[in-house]
Amino acid sequence: MSEGAPIPGIVITGASGRMGQMLVKHVAASPKARLVGALVREGHPWIGQDAGTVTGGAALGIAVTDDPLEAFAKAQAVIDFTSPAASVEFAALAAQARAVHVIGTTGFAPVDLERIRAAARHAVIVRAGNMSLGVNLLAQLARKVAAALDDDWDIEIVEAHHRMKVDAPSGTALMLGTAAAAGRGVELEAHRARGREGVTGPRRRGDIGFAVVRGGDVVGEHDVIFAADGERIVLRHLATDRAIFARGALRAALWGQDRKPGEYDMIDVLGL
Amino acid sequence: MSEGAPIPGIVITGASGRMGQMLVKHVAASPKARLVGALVREGHPWIGQDAGTVTGGAALGIAVTDDPLEAFAKAQAVIDFTSPAASVEFAALAAQARAVHVIGTTGFAPVDLERIRAAARHAVIVRAGNMSLGVNLLAQLARKVAAALDDDWDIEIVEAHHRMKVDAPSGTALMLGTAAAAGRGVELEAHRARGREGVTGPRRRGDIGFAVVRGGDVVGEHDVIFAADGERIVLRHLATDRAIFARGALRAALWGQDRKPGEYDMIDVLGL
Amino acid sequence: MSEGAPIPGIVITGASGRMGQMLVKHVAASPKARLVGALVREGHPWIGQDAGTVTGGAALGIAVTDDPLEAFAKAQAVIDFTSPAASVEFAALAAQARAVHVIGTTGFAPVDLERIRAAARHAVIVRAGNMSLGVNLLAQLARKVAAALDDDWDIEIVEAHHRMKVDAPSGTALMLGTAAAAGRGVELEAHRARGREGVTGPRRRGDIGFAVVRGGDVVGEHDVIFAADGERIVLRHLATDRAIFARGALRAALWGQDRKPGEYDMIDVLGL
Amino acid sequence: MSEGAPIPGIVITGASGRMGQMLVKHVAASPKARLVGALVREGHPWIGQDAGTVTGGAALGIAVTDDPLEAFAKAQAVIDFTSPAASVEFAALAAQARAVHVIGTTGFAPVDLERIRAAARHAVIVRAGNMSLGVNLLAQLARKVAAALDDDWDIEIVEAHHRMKVDAPSGTALMLGTAAAAGRGVELEAHRARGREGVTGPRRRGDIGFAVVRGGDVVGEHDVIFAADGERIVLRHLATDRAIFARGALRAALWGQDRKPGEYDMIDVLGL
Repeated sequence: MSEGAPIPGIVITGASGRMGQMLVKHVAASPKARLVGALVREGHPWIGQDAGTVTGGAALGIAVTDDPLEAFAKAQAVIDFTSPAASVEFAALAAQARAVHVIGTTGFAPVDLERIRAAARHAVIVRAGNMSLGVNLLAQLARKVAAALDDDWDIEIVEAHHRMKVDAPSGTALMLGTAAAAGRGVELEAHRARGREGVTGPRRRGDIGFAVVRGGDVVGEHDVIFAADGERIVLRHLATDRAIFARGALRAALWGQDRKPGEYDMIDVLGL
Repeated sequence: MSEGAPIPGIVITGASGRMGQMLVKHVAASPKARLVGALVREGHPWIGQDAGTVTGGAALGIAVTDDPLEAFAKAQAVIDFTSPAASVEFAALAAQARAVHVIGTTGFAPVDLERIRAAARHAVIVRAGNMSLGVNLLAQLARKVAAALDDDWDIEIVEAHHRMKVDAPSGTALMLGTAAAAGRGVELEAHRARGREGVTGPRRRGDIGFAVVRGGDVVGEHDVIFAADGERIVLRHLATDRAIFARGALRAALWGQDRKPGEYDMIDVLGL
Repeated sequence: MSEGAPIPGIVITGASGRMGQMLVKHVAASPKARLVGALVREGHPWIGQDAGTVTGGAALGIAVTDDPLEAFAKAQAVIDFTSPAASVEFAALAAQARAVHVIGTTGFAPVDLERIRAAARHAVIVRAGNMSLGVNLLAQLARKVAAALDDDWDIEIVEAHHRMKVDAPSGTALMLGTAAAAGRGVELEAHRARGREGVTGPRRRGDIGFAVVRGGDVVGEHDVIFAADGERIVLRHLATDRAIFARGALRAALWGQDRKPGEYDMIDVLGL
Repeated sequence: MSEGAPIPGIVITGASGRMGQMLVKHVAASPKARLVGALVREGHPWIGQDAGTVTGGAALGIAVTDDPLEAFAKAQAVIDFTSPAASVEFAALAAQARAVHVIGTTGFAPVDLERIRAAARHAVIVRAGNMSLGVNLLAQLARKVAAALDDDWDIEIVEAHHRMKVDAPSGTALMLGTAAAAGRGVELEAHRARGREGVTGPRRRGDIGFAVVRGGDVVGEHDVIFAADGERIVLRHLATDRAIFARGALRAALWGQDRKPGEYDMIDVLGL
């Protein structure tokens, strides 16, 4: 953003969710952006109330709404951690409004991705499964290291998350494994070692293994291990505060201003 | 051992194996013990040769033998990392010779253990799946910590071993899990979480989870994690040299001198 | 606390500080205690306002005050993370009021400790440099492990804290070092290795080394390492949320009810 | 090396030292190179004996010598982990012999480096403070990550080595710190935080801190930590067997065949 450029106005979708509330606070507190809208589902009890007050802070002068069209019309960017169905709809509306659409939603079906791609012909979309700067940088590193090393180096990924997490390995662990596999020029699925238990036999050369830890309130920890005879390289990311995901999303929203239409990811945003 | 006590004579069984060779060197180099025998299987090509020379060192004046009776007759202790069948036989012979029998062999069937118990009525037997001081101390700690904490603290065990290891989780990881379960007053089997993969649902309260890493030439690493909201305790053991297992076995052999007959483990040896 | 016992009333001192605000919220939210007072320094702008509102929450019906006498008179316990000068004064006043005094303040001079000891003749005082369950358990473990191992095992303590921390090593690191030294039967000061930089020569046998990491917003991480030839034991504590200190302090306040006068620490509270 | 190229002959200097003996064994065992000489200091008792026998292995048909000229004349490469004075002399002699000179020696003064640079005008010299693939890759990563992140990310380097190491921080830690500083476009010396002890005040923005652990027989462990609010990236290297340094040195010797004269480092060798 050049100096003197206007401060972008930002709408938060899913404003009543855990991530949405954090985004409302984060954007409201930032000197680099203005909160101009907070969107919730139709019929939500917060509609009409002040977005700051309902999220536990000071009043912000922004009434919560369930009308995306009206909200997006005032925005230069929309930050959206909701559901695949909602995000696909928002993609079309944001494109109409020529607002940058930052999508942290996960779990899209191929048909959803097709519609997002269509919207990206007319507007900037930044989409990533993990918005943190650190994890995206780690994925880049995992790819480069895997490309630099041969398969005398065994690749293993260890991840730890809180006790409430319902899937394993984490989407981020799979993203890191995919990056490492790409560095080696192979497909992860063909080389993924699953569920070591009992008599497994020796490790299969070229495999990428996953190990899963669940406990406490761990926000998210990932190790990408490259283990050879006599030495190991470990690329580690520790997330200790979910605010990093909000920070990454805001960075993406600012970065997207004045870009050419298209679908981007955090690697683009970070210039890696 | 009181000062002035004679230096115990020690026989190594399975002297041609990786662990056996290390034991020959370790005992020969120790000022606290004398190597008095090196046993191999019938027909082994080393029979009659010098135990030092064949294991890649200086001559020791001890001819390798396949006759346990003759070897044990000169010994105050037998150190034995072989197979269940061999160790059961050696237990009876060592008891006859009133030699301390240190057993590092694993994989015994219940009937084997019965026969070892019988031998221990007449002689000292020290048996442990992991002879390292550190791991045994860690198992004690895991038990105490598990007893001190309630199940707001999730227990997870992570282990890493070299790529050639054929079973998972490691016997040591299971030993640590058993110790933690005992500290909680439960059975491991009833609370063991296996193979997290796909949609697992939230962690089940009271579970003890295992995660397995395989790669490179890692000798053995174990973490026992206690994870609560806002804090974690981790008890970690790193083995970086297999010599620690030889060191522990020799310590057990020396400790066993002048003890009352019975079956002991490394916890007894270490006085924990 | 026996069933049916009254819910203890608790006063928080230093209620406007970061730790004080967390304590106000934590005690107000607990079903096991009642917040009955929130104390700030004379002349503080919060005086007279509602303790809940000023700490960013819902109104609690408790007016912030600067009068300890009046506040303590209604309390069964005082939780106090302030300064040495303030805590010494509060110790005398809490003893007069027969309230349990939980002191998380650090940096006391010997003369301060003398006065606290005097107050403890008439009332229960629980004082600890770190109120978390995990760290206090770790100190116990460090002592036991150090007692079980000889000085072939080198002891090193590594700690990491956020970039704003102004002292090094942390008080908790020194507490852990003191516990390890006690396990060995030595004084920490005589064996403390400081500031390795340049040509240091080999490690001095029996030393206890400290290494300090500062960065980001790390709440607090401590490793007590026991390193021998071929193996290591690491006792690790990770604090990821300052709420654990509030939780520990409240636990101490409840534990202190109906105890005999005296000075206690968290080891007593936790029954370790 | 193109297929059909002759197998390079290699001389090991300092053959009686710990690293020298390992190099003799490593080169003798490699199918990609031939051992053609083993050099020791004048007057060393090994002179004239078989290089294999004295280093505890089978005879190799190579007599240990103290004459570098004669030895280098038969060599396509010299691998040299000795002292600055010796390495400077060897650099001139190896250049005369047109042999690749692989230098793992450390602690050179500026005047020494000048002379090495002079020798590199006529022959290939590969010089690196750490010959392992992993550490050199890590240094590259540290540089890239430091370049990608601003100084909201605090950089800290933690290293652990065995109890006999006489200097701190390790040369490798300083190499990693230099790489990180270069990534930021600054000089390490101007930003190096030393010896945190006592009341240090808050961390200075932009500093690169070092923490040192000494104990046991740790071969070498290095962490480069990038710590921001809410997340951390850690780049870790673990060396568990000194053979990796021999492996790296041999790789450098092979790589250097048919290169243009000049001074190279492991980054060049690894093609990073």
